[in-house]
Amino acid sequence: MSTNILIDKILEKKNPTVAGLDPLCDYLPQSMIAGDSPAEKADAIFRFNKDLIDALYDIVPAVKPQLAYYEILGHEGYKAFCKTVDYAKSKGLYVIADGKRNDIGSTASAYSKGFFGIIDSDALTVNAYLGFDGVEPFLVDGKAIYILVKTSNKGSGELQDLVLENGKKVYEHMGDLVSAWGEKSIGSHGYSDVGAVVGATYPAMLTELRERLPHTFFLVPGYGAQGGGAKDVVGAFKNGIGAVINSSRGIMCAYKAQGLPAEKFAEAARIEAIRMRDEIMSEI
Amino acid sequence: MSTNILIDKILEKKNPTVAGLDPLCDYLPQSMIAGDSPAEKADAIFRFNKDLIDALYDIVPAVKPQLAYYEILGHEGYKAFCKTVDYAKSKGLYVIADGKRNDIGSTASAYSKGFFGIIDSDALTVNAYLGFDGVEPFLVDGKAIYILVKTSNKGSGELQDLVLENGKKVYEHMGDLVSAWGEKSIGSHGYSDVGAVVGATYPAMLTELRERLPHTFFLVPGYGAQGGGAKDVVGAFKNGIGAVINSSRGIMCAYKAQGLPAEKFAEAARIEAIRMRDEIMSEI
Repeated sequence: MSTNILIDKILEKKNPTVAGLDPLCDYLPQSMIAGDSPAEKADAIFRFNKDLIDALYDIVPAVKPQLAYYEILGHEGYKAFCKTVDYAKSKGLYVIADGKRNDIGSTASAYSKGFFGIIDSDALTVNAYLGFDGVEPFLVDGKAIYILVKTSNKGSGELQDLVLENGKKVYEHMGDLVSAWGEKSIGSHGYSDVGAVVGATYPAMLTELRERLPHTFFLVPGYGAQGGGAKDVVGAFKNGIGAVINSSRGIMCAYKAQGLPAEKFAEAARIEAIRMRDEIMSEI
Repeated sequence: MSTNILIDKILEKKNPTVAGLDPLCDYLPQSMIAGDSPAEKADAIFRFNKDLIDALYDIVPAVKPQLAYYEILGHEGYKAFCKTVDYAKSKGLYVIADGKRNDIGSTASAYSKGFFGIIDSDALTVNAYLGFDGVEPFLVDGKAIYILVKTSNKGSGELQDLVLENGKKVYEHMGDLVSAWGEKSIGSHGYSDVGAVVGATYPAMLTELRERLPHTFFLVPGYGAQGGGAKDVVGAFKNGIGAVINSSRGIMCAYKAQGLPAEKFAEAARIEAIRMRDEIMSEI
């Protein structure tokens, strides 16, 4: 009942947000980066993450490192990802690995053993274009997944909004599959361990999907740098729960909006995380 | 014109197959694995790959390491993946990184810089559920991608075979998008750098898609261990080109089918790769 644990943390901290850890080297104070090698850059992004986690762990319930920003540095970056997961967990944070992994069953099983084994993340984002046999290996007791339903990007409608002959849109059909796949893992808060990714940039669809999928917990990207605000994510909640809202660049790069030097990234991130929490809590 | 280079290698070696490098530790001679740590296991799978590459590089044009089988060992596994790509390239092999990566544009750009930068693979598999803005960052001069169209697994129809209101199936629509996205990168052999993954396990659809997408090169999984045979992949070709057929377990674990001890994996793999080549070449 992994989602239940996340909801407990959200209720305890009175904060339904997740801090995205997508540490492009450009975002860091350049003084943190000792040199140009992948090892030096990877070391810097881990220390950047560690400082962010130290500044945020008592106010946010969860972090979401995005694999791409680690794989961009090859295996040294991947090591920084693994260290980030470990450090976040040591501070009591719930960790969502954002990898959007997907494959046929035997291969999905290898991914599952990676992200829910040697890397002990609590949840993983998954792309279900392959159907249920590519999803089933990720249904692991005590772990959760978030399946892409309606993504936050501008072009998401190109496939996801197409209408099927039965009148459903592709993303609605995907949502219904996600709901069915989660039926066996609904916890005491009423939400299953098979969640959905639904973008804050499509608030009307977010509201519709909340009604349509009452037991599906939502991971909502698109707040902040991508344009979504607190009013856009209200529809993801019912009775104050139902979703966790991600902000990555908005928190990591808060120093820019606050007119501070990059060295102040951690304090600025804390200020922004508190502002975001209060803004969202005042709406839901 | 990355696909053109792959086709040149295929024509030169008279072999349209790619050897999948999905090295589960269970497949290895246990004597190769010095101990239980991820580093020891990762070292063993790299040496296993190296021996396979040494046994195959003069007869197969390409290899396809599948990321999941490296990520299962965390960052040590990822390092073995990177070393495998480097070693395969040093032997003149074309390398398809099978990661099925996907994300919004800014994040897809980070993946692209990873797999087509610090990791210098020639091609990457991509899942296009997010639409074109998630695909565009992978369109890099001199590199190719393979987008999931109709996958080889049993449940692939759950989403991919659904019929849209315009009468097209989802996988046909995806195929048409792939074809359009490749229009600007068609090389002298007539195929673009935006390829499609189409499973050998659905031979009729493979044949239909070949007709429908005349300029789209196919990466065809599902031969061998997944059940497809040479007759099933014939439809992927036109005038002797048009596809590269993958075999992973069939080649890596050929020693089992040949009744040999695991220590003979490399010789057995070579025998199977030659048999597979001859079988496919006799059909197309």
